Amino acid sequence: MFITIEGIDGSGKSTQARRLAARLRREGKKVTETHEPGDWAHGDILRALLLNGRLRHPLTEIMLFVADRCEHVAQVIQPALDQGEWVVCDRYNDSTRAYQCWGRGLEEDMLESLIKWCGIPEPDLTVWLDLPVEEARKRMSGRGESDRIESEDLKFHRAVARGFRKLAERNASRFFRVDARAGEDEIEEAVFSELKRRCVR
Amino acid sequence: MFITIEGIDGSGKSTQARRLAARLRREGKKVTETHEPGDWAHGDILRALLLNGRLRHPLTEIMLFVADRCEHVAQVIQPALDQGEWVVCDRYNDSTRAYQCWGRGLEEDMLESLIKWCGIPEPDLTVWLDLPVEEARKRMSGRGESDRIESEDLKFHRAVARGFRKLAERNASRFFRVDARAGEDEIEEAVFSELKRRCVR
Repeated sequence: MFITIEGIDGSGKSTQARRLAARLRREGKKVTETHEPGDWAHGDILRALLLNGRLRHPLTEIMLFVADRCEHVAQVIQPALDQGEWVVCDRYNDSTRAYQCWGRGLEEDMLESLIKWCGIPEPDLTVWLDLPVEEARKRMSGRGESDRIESEDLKFHRAVARGFRKLAERNASRFFRVDARAGEDEIEEAVFSELKRRCVR
Repeated sequence: MFITIEGIDGSGKSTQARRLAARLRREGKKVTETHEPGDWAHGDILRALLLNGRLRHPLTEIMLFVADRCEHVAQVIQPALDQGEWVVCDRYNDSTRAYQCWGRGLEEDMLESLIKWCGIPEPDLTVWLDLPVEEARKRMSGRGESDRIESEDLKFHRAVARGFRKLAERNASRFFRVDARAGEDEIEEAVFSELKRRCVR
């Protein structure tokens, strides 16, 4: 099963991805725990360029994210799925949709064409950690320096949050919304129960 | 005026780009001499990944070339053209068409959509250094180590050469074909005469 964890910066994705992977492993599953951008052979190079490079053209970012995903799928995700492993991925297609299309206003149709053209698979389940932007900002303020995308203004982050909400509405059967204001244990429990519910169904 | 120099590896593009730029400067023009991939602020990173990275997905290459071109246009080419300078660029859109579409068999329609979507301008003149593949291979053999694309097999390079021929037929008014078996001086002269002819017209 291919599971993605999505949400705005500060919503607790990495923590919950780690917890979910550990939980699945305790249940005896083989799990590949991964993240975007950059978690493949030369991906650190693209990650650095994406998060801290001086980019001037509005579409470079989306091209680089798609290139990064192509390699991530080919080198990491697909081989793991082919081996029958579980894959837990921190950020994926929905982040590109929310940040680049909803946040930056780029055409959704073009991104969907790219995703289709590149044969990028959709996950079986997307856990959406839903957190108010103001709350996320508060949490982020304790984290030290922000990257290029994190340091965009409040208006941008509100648009991204709206994007996730829209995506969850449009893909109701794939998305599982969790209130990310809850405690870490409670969220882990909610995600795991939902998974069990889906696997039994 | 925006001029690109195109052709297969070993056809003498860099030499002729340098000669044309020098010639234009002697005529009193301000010239930006540039090349793809990689000739912009962080472009060396993408160039290294494109020419020597271990890429597994068939479409990563085309995404990275388009991303590279977006930044190259935004940071280098368009600002120079806006200042009224001449731009001489070693490789550009037609290389992506010839190598990725004709060489690797990727969809032309999708590349054309990307070029259009990204607002990547076409050059005013494309100098095509036409050299038989066998002759180019002979020249390349003296150059030392080949990069990831250069070291593809003969069949690939023949398909690329066929691509340039097709592109020249389809864009007859933009392309200027030069027989690259001629001497360097003779080629420089032919290119410069064609430029003068076009500027007077």
